[in-house]
Amino acid sequence: MNSLSPQHPIRFSARTQDLHPSPIREILAVVDRPGMISFAGGLPSLDSFPQFTLEAMPQHMLQYGASEGEAELRERIAADMQSLGVKCSAEQVLILSGSQQGIDLVAKLFIDPGTPVAVEAPTYLAALQVFRFFGARFVAYDAGAPDLDTWQREKPAFAYAIPTFQNPSGRCLDAGERSALAAACDAGNIPLFEDDPYRDLVYDDCERTPVCARLQQAPWIYQGSFSKSLAPGLRLGYLVASPELMPFLTRLKQAADLHSNRLSQWLVLQQLNNPDRSRQLADLAGHYRQRRDAFDAALRRHFVDLAVWQTPPGGLFFWLTLNRRIDTRQLLPKAIEAGVAFMPGEPFLPMAVDACGQLRLNFSHSSSEDAESGLRILADLVRESI
Amino acid sequence: MNSLSPQHPIRFSARTQDLHPSPIREILAVVDRPGMISFAGGLPSLDSFPQFTLEAMPQHMLQYGASEGEAELRERIAADMQSLGVKCSAEQVLILSGSQQGIDLVAKLFIDPGTPVAVEAPTYLAALQVFRFFGARFVAYDAGAPDLDTWQREKPAFAYAIPTFQNPSGRCLDAGERSALAAACDAGNIPLFEDDPYRDLVYDDCERTPVCARLQQAPWIYQGSFSKSLAPGLRLGYLVASPELMPFLTRLKQAADLHSNRLSQWLVLQQLNNPDRSRQLADLAGHYRQRRDAFDAALRRHFVDLAVWQTPPGGLFFWLTLNRRIDTRQLLPKAIEAGVAFMPGEPFLPMAVDACGQLRLNFSHSSSEDAESGLRILADLVRESI
Repeated sequence: MNSLSPQHPIRFSARTQDLHPSPIREILAVVDRPGMISFAGGLPSLDSFPQFTLEAMPQHMLQYGASEGEAELRERIAADMQSLGVKCSAEQVLILSGSQQGIDLVAKLFIDPGTPVAVEAPTYLAALQVFRFFGARFVAYDAGAPDLDTWQREKPAFAYAIPTFQNPSGRCLDAGERSALAAACDAGNIPLFEDDPYRDLVYDDCERTPVCARLQQAPWIYQGSFSKSLAPGLRLGYLVASPELMPFLTRLKQAADLHSNRLSQWLVLQQLNNPDRSRQLADLAGHYRQRRDAFDAALRRHFVDLAVWQTPPGGLFFWLTLNRRIDTRQLLPKAIEAGVAFMPGEPFLPMAVDACGQLRLNFSHSSSEDAESGLRILADLVRESI
Repeated sequence: MNSLSPQHPIRFSARTQDLHPSPIREILAVVDRPGMISFAGGLPSLDSFPQFTLEAMPQHMLQYGASEGEAELRERIAADMQSLGVKCSAEQVLILSGSQQGIDLVAKLFIDPGTPVAVEAPTYLAALQVFRFFGARFVAYDAGAPDLDTWQREKPAFAYAIPTFQNPSGRCLDAGERSALAAACDAGNIPLFEDDPYRDLVYDDCERTPVCARLQQAPWIYQGSFSKSLAPGLRLGYLVASPELMPFLTRLKQAADLHSNRLSQWLVLQQLNNPDRSRQLADLAGHYRQRRDAFDAALRRHFVDLAVWQTPPGGLFFWLTLNRRIDTRQLLPKAIEAGVAFMPGEPFLPMAVDACGQLRLNFSHSSSEDAESGLRILADLVRESI
């Protein structure tokens, strides 16, 4: 039965009106088709994952655990953050069930209907979705040169930034830009929410010191992930925050899922303590650097007359700006029909646009052969569309 | 630094005002002290956990997965639900990062500031916390005999119920009460949110058919957990919902943490498919039944002149009503000083009360020796307090 009587409609929350299907999700549903070449997701390479074993795990890790996470893992992360220049203690570390959860917790902490939130344009679309769901009003800004007047006028509740190998643009802020962002947050006492899932995937020498390390006064939340540097299926990430925010974030974490998976926490700690860890990360970056370079070469063969792009110094994505501003959402079904998936650019923008003529291409998941043939197909479709 | 300038206070969301520390959390922080006898948490017995191994897990389980969960696990859960009388397909199953997450998702789906929500009194305190955090206004009801007039007047957005071995009361609704609850939801088209984490921990013969199976029309969400029947550290649960709610719940799940831990999903599926599974559950229930009986006997020795209680036919808790209505929150620090932890009753009530004279005692975690000495100490403290 379960049909609804029209006299008594279900009364959903107001925010449910902003609960749209994720474009990534819809696309990921088709990329598993045999033969599909996918530049769509941000999937790490399958052969990059370590072997995990639970053999030596103490049985008490199967019991309920602390909402904040395992003490040893928090200490290890705090030490790593300190070595990056961020002054913090283990008490400032909160283990997350993936860094998507950090976005949910921060949204809950700050956003009411109508709350202004400063976001880059473009930026991570699943962050935009969550912020929008809680009622955010977006104030777009350039993370490398925030406009203080706008921030003074709009008073954003926080500024969201991906300073290192940004998703989707691939941009990495230089030292001056990082200082400018930190100074702007300090000047307005705007909390900085720094999302840093890609920092270990570095291919060219560039500045990667967290912007949070440069703050003098503003509250801050920094989050990292083990999805790219270890394995996404573990669903483990972490945040580190200025002390005054921790009691709130810890309670929000507890209300969300009590605590994070303890098996994953134990497995990740073993990997972080593995003496081979830095060599493994270097191997991983080397592997992805080769894929980036092959992808870049294929792009130059097929897109040089169609688009412009920066070669990303790290991360997982090329961000293409086509010479003609077409609606790349309309390109997608044709591409999928031709066996190639990509991410249209429009959902990465905080403001509604008809056609941005930009698209995001993942290079880490495809072999160089697939990159070559997929980009050839995609270029032909773009040529037909413009 | 990170001190806040008083001129620019952090602007938290309005709901953050209702973000209080969890009483359970505060208590769990002290129960690890050596020598403490804890009746406070709902911790399963450490020796009840199976041995888990990842040896045969396919490597692709380390990749990103579907927000809905692993197909095989969803099918297995749907089959189990059908065998309980709930008509559903695998498409109606959503794997959760523990059933606390289901509470968060349902709150997001239904609750705006001021939204009426029907809850039992007493009920699971962490559900009350989440509902309150999202702004719920509570409409207390008796799950075995809902008052239709109140529901017609108050129009709750949904009714939350733990019909089987309720937390904290231990109550299990009989067949007539289950029918009454289903009929009331149908009559008002009130969505039923049925929380069922304890159903496998059954010690006496009693009706356990999900109330959702008796619904004719009302939308429903049923959720279960593997924390009690396998291991909490896996952080895995599931919900099953009427079809019209699934698109919303799936999107909410994706926004919360993309998807649940795939290692845990694989490990749980192996256990569910283990031919010894039903024997293991029977052993587990037998083990807890002995602890319940020993606890009951110790209660009769020490509390017979101080309190009344029902012997719970399943679950993890005794719910004591003292002969004198004292504030059990004030009893707690004295008890902890004397080496015994328990859960005061007041936080389980949806309305503010000065003193309810009730307390929750977990019997699954303590040996019979600890139960005996802990209850003797507690009874002495109660005698001093009344």
